[in-house]
Amino acid sequence: MDTSVGLELWVKEIHQNTTGLSFKVEKTLFSGQSRFQKVDIVQTYGHGIMLLNDGIIMLSERDEFIYHEMIAHVPLFVHPSPKQVLVIGGGDGGTVREIMKHPGVERVVMVEIDELVVNACRTHLSSVSCEMDNPRVELCIEDGTEYVDNTQEIFDVVIVDSTDPVGPGAVLFSRPFYEKISAILGPDGIMITQAESPFYDHDIQRTMLLNQRPFFKKLQLYLFSTLTYPGGLWSFGYASKGICPIGDFDPDRVETSDISTRYYNPKIHIAAFALPNFVSENLEDILDPIVIPFQNAQIKK
Amino acid sequence: MDTSVGLELWVKEIHQNTTGLSFKVEKTLFSGQSRFQKVDIVQTYGHGIMLLNDGIIMLSERDEFIYHEMIAHVPLFVHPSPKQVLVIGGGDGGTVREIMKHPGVERVVMVEIDELVVNACRTHLSSVSCEMDNPRVELCIEDGTEYVDNTQEIFDVVIVDSTDPVGPGAVLFSRPFYEKISAILGPDGIMITQAESPFYDHDIQRTMLLNQRPFFKKLQLYLFSTLTYPGGLWSFGYASKGICPIGDFDPDRVETSDISTRYYNPKIHIAAFALPNFVSENLEDILDPIVIPFQNAQIKK
Repeated sequence: MDTSVGLELWVKEIHQNTTGLSFKVEKTLFSGQSRFQKVDIVQTYGHGIMLLNDGIIMLSERDEFIYHEMIAHVPLFVHPSPKQVLVIGGGDGGTVREIMKHPGVERVVMVEIDELVVNACRTHLSSVSCEMDNPRVELCIEDGTEYVDNTQEIFDVVIVDSTDPVGPGAVLFSRPFYEKISAILGPDGIMITQAESPFYDHDIQRTMLLNQRPFFKKLQLYLFSTLTYPGGLWSFGYASKGICPIGDFDPDRVETSDISTRYYNPKIHIAAFALPNFVSENLEDILDPIVIPFQNAQIKK
Repeated sequence: MDTSVGLELWVKEIHQNTTGLSFKVEKTLFSGQSRFQKVDIVQTYGHGIMLLNDGIIMLSERDEFIYHEMIAHVPLFVHPSPKQVLVIGGGDGGTVREIMKHPGVERVVMVEIDELVVNACRTHLSSVSCEMDNPRVELCIEDGTEYVDNTQEIFDVVIVDSTDPVGPGAVLFSRPFYEKISAILGPDGIMITQAESPFYDHDIQRTMLLNQRPFFKKLQLYLFSTLTYPGGLWSFGYASKGICPIGDFDPDRVETSDISTRYYNPKIHIAAFALPNFVSENLEDILDPIVIPFQNAQIKK
């Protein structure tokens, strides 16, 4: 039994066979096996409830707000009027929860391949899945690539809230997939993609952004923190038909909204696009140069 | 033997008994015990050589550049003309190495309580300790609090490159210590302090910044990433007699310098002071409001 006296349980994720991240576990809340992956939900001691797919930590209640705020609010506060949003993956519901904070969004289509993730999170992770029953949310249990191949709809924002490029998530990093997304985006359209670790996954980052490059006018990377992914620094790709995440961003839209956040704010929005040298040097031939108007900080003595 | 076939070695740091960070180890290069702490240097598989004091990871060769660039270049590029620098702690030499990149710095006094750390890093971590023999560096093996009590000198920048507020490092987070530092800083003086994790150490952050507050006109926190500390997001305190880390920062000074960095750049300098809501809300009654001129990013369509 998980709760037997004297037994100390830790969940541990080993990354690239050189580093590991572990969390002390109180008990297992759910374990299941779908056609695609093993799904586990555990109660930890210091980090709330945690979701793992195939043993890889997807989120913890303690820090998931960062990932989900940054994947949702950056595009939704940059697009001039986002009404139709498509989420590929994101079965836990956290991305949808943040999108639902935007009253102007009329409809979110969420395409998740694995119903087991959705159902397990509905039951055991209600702080994350709490907006899944919102009437503006339409859930499709379907392969994301098939959905984008077949849909006749046009979206303002597409969010690829994927797992790593192994197993069911691999195809969500491919060139044909990005081309299809580009085709279903409106003229102000923005695509956000989960873009892995700048420390550990520089080759994956190059490959996925090179795969996006032909289909988007603007391509950027932005950064955020996480407690539960290796290295603690993580990234999203920003791709658009022309809308600039800095130049077209109006901080007043955030300040005058009623949207409550714990990580995201206008300063963080812009600061997230400031890349350390080792990150920008890896991607400088792929990303667009970005002008962050920091020069205005210059107030000489 | 560390290298015997079949033996898999991992070094593991447990934080607050709820999370752990581990790294695969090839062999131990050095183990010693001083009057103050146990000092270990190990060769890891994926993260180069690693230094641990009392089992707590101090640095790895793979990511130490981030910590050391951010602790040194932020104050040295903000102070109008830093010539005399005091480093308290920092026995590994990484902070001194970055300071030595500034040709205008005439002298660094490094006050480290534990000679064993200095000697072990000189022998086994030369990529970090490589500037310790620079004639501009003066090493004092002494208690940092005694040094600041007794010195008659005035410094432009004081960097408190301390361990955590337990053991020999505890006194380096105290109110009398900060008062003494304030007294030995010149009118443009800046003090930088290792300020722990915004995720895990919010109480320590409040206490240490409240201890600094009475003696400094400007007080800020800035953030950076680390692979080897729990949570991956870490912070430094910025305290000054009046110099503002944003308003008095001239990006051109960085651009026209010959200083080579792998993390730090002018955008990162300013972005580091943009705090997530959960961080600024914890400290809003202590820190000065900071105006980052992001409003100028607003280029309406």
